[in-house]
Amino acid sequence: PEIREQLKSGPIIEGIVTTLSATGEVHLAAQGPRVDERGDWLLLRPYQSSTTFRNLSQSRHGVFHLVDDALILVRAALGLWTDPPEYVATESGRTARLKECCSWREFEIEELDLAGEPARLIGRVVQRGEVGSFAGFNRARHAVIEAAILATRVHLIPAAELKEQLERLRVPVEKTAGPRERVAFQLVLTEVERRLASR
Amino acid sequence: PEIREQLKSGPIIEGIVTTLSATGEVHLAAQGPRVDERGDWLLLRPYQSSTTFRNLSQSRHGVFHLVDDALILVRAALGLWTDPPEYVATESGRTARLKECCSWREFEIEELDLAGEPARLIGRVVQRGEVGSFAGFNRARHAVIEAAILATRVHLIPAAELKEQLERLRVPVEKTAGPRERVAFQLVLTEVERRLASR
Repeated sequence: PEIREQLKSGPIIEGIVTTLSATGEVHLAAQGPRVDERGDWLLLRPYQSSTTFRNLSQSRHGVFHLVDDALILVRAALGLWTDPPEYVATESGRTARLKECCSWREFEIEELDLAGEPARLIGRVVQRGEVGSFAGFNRARHAVIEAAILATRVHLIPAAELKEQLERLRVPVEKTAGPRERVAFQLVLTEVERRLASR
Repeated sequence: PEIREQLKSGPIIEGIVTTLSATGEVHLAAQGPRVDERGDWLLLRPYQSSTTFRNLSQSRHGVFHLVDDALILVRAALGLWTDPPEYVATESGRTARLKECCSWREFEIEELDLAGEPARLIGRVVQRGEVGSFAGFNRARHAVIEAAILATRVHLIPAAELKEQLERLRVPVEKTAGPRERVAFQLVLTEVERRLASR
């Protein structure tokens, strides 16, 4: 019960969740669970129609990855992969994780609340590992993530407002981006154009 | 020369630089150097009137810290300390670093370009360490940093525009913040009010 309270007010961390289907296929999704102070618990809110939800309700195991690479988060949020990322099996044999990330936590679902949509799934961390170190706080990286979130909402936002917000986000990108952030921002802009044209 | 090119197009990483004065006092400043791909070099741009510049041109050594805690970045950017942070000496004995951070890199200044203002200082990393692990990508954390940057520019931005931008930043804070990010955002808002009243 104390954990449940902490999870309610804990920060939402944007990262990547991997799960396995019944036939052993890896599914990857951008997710923003709330986490407790020590990072031992996650509150996930996948839609009941999603592959992440289906896989988790069957296998109960998944992996939440912390990443600091805007390009990976953009590809995951918008489904824009050229080459799929590399996966490795976790020690439990119950699921698979990204090979490249800052760190990962395998969790087991302890509680499924299906009363609302999205569902509320509480996961307990059963194993974790550090892979790469944090590359630091970069304003362009965060602007790119905000742009990607806008791109997932193209159907909800008037085109003029969308463009104005993207122009605002361009400022920190032009000022502070490195090569990866520039590629990631361009990817988002192209995807927004594509989604605007097809809506 | 290749490094100089990489530094020009590398990302600006927001972090904290510590330096020592001639009398051994630690000075702390929020800085956003450009870094090369491997993180072996930094391009710092302190104003020639700043304590960071004076200390670096004398001692040549300093420490750049990667942090993922918005509260520390806000306190450093706006000078809002209640208790000063804890420092430890580096092995070289030439400077001191923050005890709490994600990671740190001690650098030695190899090149000072005083032709313009701000100055351009190129630092080579001579030692590094990992302290804490990355807490993950959180939208509120980045919104708080953007708010702190606005707070340092209160004298340059019309009050109405400033408030509109802060209201926009409030959205991801309310949606995704944990307790630390909420405190940090409130700190920025209070400081903006104070600076607006005294301008």
